[in-house]
Amino acid sequence: MAEEQTAAPTAVINTITQSVNDKDLTKLAAAAGKLSTRQLAATLERLSARQRAVAYRVLPKQRALEVFDALQPALQGELVEALQDAEVAALFAELNPDDRVWLMDELPATVAQRLLRGLPERDRQLTAEVLGYPKDSIGRRASPEVVTTHPEIDVTETLRRLRLRVDDAETVYTLPVVDHERRIVGVVSLRDLIGAADDALVESLMQEAHTAVATEDAELAARRCADLELLALPVVDSEERLVGILTIDDAVRILQHEESEDAARQGGVEPLNRPYLATPVFTLVRSRVVWLLVLALGATLTVQVLSVFEATLAQLTVLALFVPLLIGTGGNTGNQAATTVTRALALDDVSPRDVMKVLTREMRVGALLGLMLGALGFAITSVIYEMNVGIVIGLTLLAVCTVAATVGGIMPMLARAIRVDPAVFSNPFISTFVDATGLIIYFLIARAVLGI
Amino acid sequence: MAEEQTAAPTAVINTITQSVNDKDLTKLAAAAGKLSTRQLAATLERLSARQRAVAYRVLPKQRALEVFDALQPALQGELVEALQDAEVAALFAELNPDDRVWLMDELPATVAQRLLRGLPERDRQLTAEVLGYPKDSIGRRASPEVVTTHPEIDVTETLRRLRLRVDDAETVYTLPVVDHERRIVGVVSLRDLIGAADDALVESLMQEAHTAVATEDAELAARRCADLELLALPVVDSEERLVGILTIDDAVRILQHEESEDAARQGGVEPLNRPYLATPVFTLVRSRVVWLLVLALGATLTVQVLSVFEATLAQLTVLALFVPLLIGTGGNTGNQAATTVTRALALDDVSPRDVMKVLTREMRVGALLGLMLGALGFAITSVIYEMNVGIVIGLTLLAVCTVAATVGGIMPMLARAIRVDPAVFSNPFISTFVDATGLIIYFLIARAVLGI
Repeated sequence: MAEEQTAAPTAVINTITQSVNDKDLTKLAAAAGKLSTRQLAATLERLSARQRAVAYRVLPKQRALEVFDALQPALQGELVEALQDAEVAALFAELNPDDRVWLMDELPATVAQRLLRGLPERDRQLTAEVLGYPKDSIGRRASPEVVTTHPEIDVTETLRRLRLRVDDAETVYTLPVVDHERRIVGVVSLRDLIGAADDALVESLMQEAHTAVATEDAELAARRCADLELLALPVVDSEERLVGILTIDDAVRILQHEESEDAARQGGVEPLNRPYLATPVFTLVRSRVVWLLVLALGATLTVQVLSVFEATLAQLTVLALFVPLLIGTGGNTGNQAATTVTRALALDDVSPRDVMKVLTREMRVGALLGLMLGALGFAITSVIYEMNVGIVIGLTLLAVCTVAATVGGIMPMLARAIRVDPAVFSNPFISTFVDATGLIIYFLIARAVLGI
Repeated sequence: MAEEQTAAPTAVINTITQSVNDKDLTKLAAAAGKLSTRQLAATLERLSARQRAVAYRVLPKQRALEVFDALQPALQGELVEALQDAEVAALFAELNPDDRVWLMDELPATVAQRLLRGLPERDRQLTAEVLGYPKDSIGRRASPEVVTTHPEIDVTETLRRLRLRVDDAETVYTLPVVDHERRIVGVVSLRDLIGAADDALVESLMQEAHTAVATEDAELAARRCADLELLALPVVDSEERLVGILTIDDAVRILQHEESEDAARQGGVEPLNRPYLATPVFTLVRSRVVWLLVLALGATLTVQVLSVFEATLAQLTVLALFVPLLIGTGGNTGNQAATTVTRALALDDVSPRDVMKVLTREMRVGALLGLMLGALGFAITSVIYEMNVGIVIGLTLLAVCTVAATVGGIMPMLARAIRVDPAVFSNPFISTFVDATGLIIYFLIARAVLGI
């Protein structure tokens, strides 16, 4: 009820873990009965794959289905592999066609095929239809179970048809209005149907339809559904014929999935797609090591730049003291610009054709930031070390901030222009790039000012 | 229609900008008429505040309201300040109570008060009610316009009541079921009402209600609404009495707002809350300069650490070459851990009481990553420089990665434990912290191995 927590009480979690290990199934069932579906799913996520399958088996059938639904697709996949064929087949048949596709993406192809063959004819057809669209397309995430109506029928008749489909339709709140070739001509909301006279024609109630084409990118379609605050977005084929419907709850699920991926990439990690505590340490290492290696190899650039200036460094060791500060500030400025522009791209606030606008803005922002930091850096360093060193630090900060903000701002724009996910040019990537450039600027300015 | 773009065609944007500047209102109205509501709103966002007010005035009344609704609250606020009182009052009266509150948060208090006084009695009451809840609470984001029903009335009567409220209710798809003291006893969906017999009692159709308490944090309530895939979440007071309802579209709006803020903070930027191109350069500078200064001041720690080891550096300049590489790798490792754990906290996959679990996991992940990178670093450096330097680099990478992953992983946990937003310990913050520690480790190892 109110203020309910996703996390279960620690005592109950401990009892469940304990009774799984002791194989005390009565105690296990009693403890599980004390939790809400979400709490139980969250508790299962904290167990090992083997423990999870044991705990799952003691659940009553309806409860089991609800808990299964609440698990993330990756864990559903593992669970299916651990359960027996008959249990799996029963579970699989109960899922909606679009949920089935999320799960199938996680299963080995042979298991998925076997499960699909076990489905009743109609379910198999609907699922195969959804599976026919390319990965990451909205066709694959939309439900084929849509209730439609026609422009020339009236409210009473529409409501009668709707009642017949109330059990299996994905939504009954937004009805696509189609012509006799199933081409979409509008949408009508149940709200408008309920508010209208019984003999009003759908034609007089329907509104222009926003739609998505089945092959369109799932994220774009989901974002449109959310931005337009629609409860459902009809999905059509290339000839505007209705093939499915995306409901807002599925749109939210897609967006949260994408946002998890973007957040991960921005931090230089491959997305986990499973809860942190249910992820083995080796999987965590794998999700990070490639990025870390790539970045470390990129960073060898800085070693090379510094070797070029090794003589200068040996002559004036004081220059080495400011290296971390200068490249750190450059990296931070670049990250700030990249974060802002990446987000603006994701929200469609800027598009690749604005590249010159972004470039001049970020150059000005960087120069202003550099001016402030540079003045401060000059003042402090002049006092503590000497005037000349102060001038070098001040000028370097000015130059580095300008370059870093500009580079950080246009990197995501370039990524989008060449149709790569802007989040791939993650913050660590930009830092590494800016580091090497910053060092070159630093030593060139130092040589010029100090005359070495 | 299909594949519609949020961005308007460049030619139309140019025509609009041109005709605003030329004060050619006929041409302006014609160009605006060619765009969808979203496209027009996106176009207005690219204009200056003054241009925006001019362009907005030529829109027909209904169109103007739709476009206003599609603008972000910060821009709505600016527009209201630019329009004349009568125009504003008309616009303001047309908004829903909860949308009105988003806008009022952006307006100067005097303007907000004046507008509120101009509202019809009933609207003023509803809005004041919403305004009565604390900022960032769900009470302030929920709509007070709810249709309810009672357990002992039947489907026909419920549908009749619902028809009376169809125009002003926030949603008609989820009806809270309340007793005669307005305490919530369940919810019933319009779907179930439509599917049931006319004389079925609400009692027999209602389900247990998930609710939020009005003073609860808006983000938590919105995330629950989305996670549970509910179309609407009833909001209650401390005595379980119904006070409003949060619909999924508003929940999505709250979550997107929060995710923008988190993404910004992770990159060390204050959230803009307005489209990038509609943000003046000075505002961009302001959103970044404080963070940048704080981080730069933090980075002076590295200057101090290096001065301590200046003698060692002067003796062996080669050590300076690896400084950016080593602290960069440490920063990246720390960022990766922080990104993963911050996300896990946001999704409720881990909670503060898991701090020891996270600590040991991240220590193991860091040590494994450090082992791999260290072995590689040792091999390469031994070949190019000498064996001793290779040992220093290898050992330092091992130690730095272990420390960085551990620190990066528990920082967000500590933030949550002391009830600070984990995103505040942003990636740049962690990098700066890890930099200083990394340098100390590096020089201590170097002294020990090289005997200087």
